Amino acid sequence: MVTDIFCKIINGEISAEIFWQDEDFLVIKDIHPQAPVHLLIISKRHIGDLKEVGVGDSALLGKIFLIAEQVAKQAGISESGYRLIINEGEHAGKLVPHLHVHLLGGKELGAKIVQ
Amino acid sequence: MVTDIFCKIINGEISAEIFWQDEDFLVIKDIHPQAPVHLLIISKRHIGDLKEVGVGDSALLGKIFLIAEQVAKQAGISESGYRLIINEGEHAGKLVPHLHVHLLGGKELGAKIVQ
Repeated sequence: MVTDIFCKIINGEISAEIFWQDEDFLVIKDIHPQAPVHLLIISKRHIGDLKEVGVGDSALLGKIFLIAEQVAKQAGISESGYRLIINEGEHAGKLVPHLHVHLLGGKELGAKIVQ
Repeated sequence: MVTDIFCKIINGEISAEIFWQDEDFLVIKDIHPQAPVHLLIISKRHIGDLKEVGVGDSALLGKIFLIAEQVAKQAGISESGYRLIINEGEHAGKLVPHLHVHLLGGKELGAKIVQ
């Protein structure tokens, strides 16, 4: 049984401030925010990484982009702009082995997109 | 008629080094790379931003994640890891008004995901 921290939040074993959710995704605030708005869009189904997905998952994965725009609007940053970031593997510093997308905004994020 | 630089590359008006393509997406090298591998996954259909997409576009958009893993493998960075970045609007410094996803890797990208 997979028991990463996001699974525990989804299962209700660990509490988190839920910003938005539907049957497929949960959106919570990042506990170490790197911008005034820093949300995490998390797949409710345990997807470890993008090596595990296939063509049959396209519609599910594509929903992430629609949810991003929707929660950006809800957070008041749809017009000012936002950045979506997905980390995969060690070089990207992925910490939790469960598909999640960072949504950041509320300030100028800079043209330098990696360190 | 929309004539941003990515449309011109897709139409063949401007040449670019094509890394990968199918009927829906084109992958090229970023001309100002910020990492040893810096690719752009570009929608062939002109999608200005995520305000323009709806539920009917989910499967198309979800393909981006599958393509990312595929081209990361082709670029030799699937195992070491990579970061996907989508900029939307002014705060994110989006330069070309045409949906595109940055894929970066080939080095440690750092835990600080925005400046």
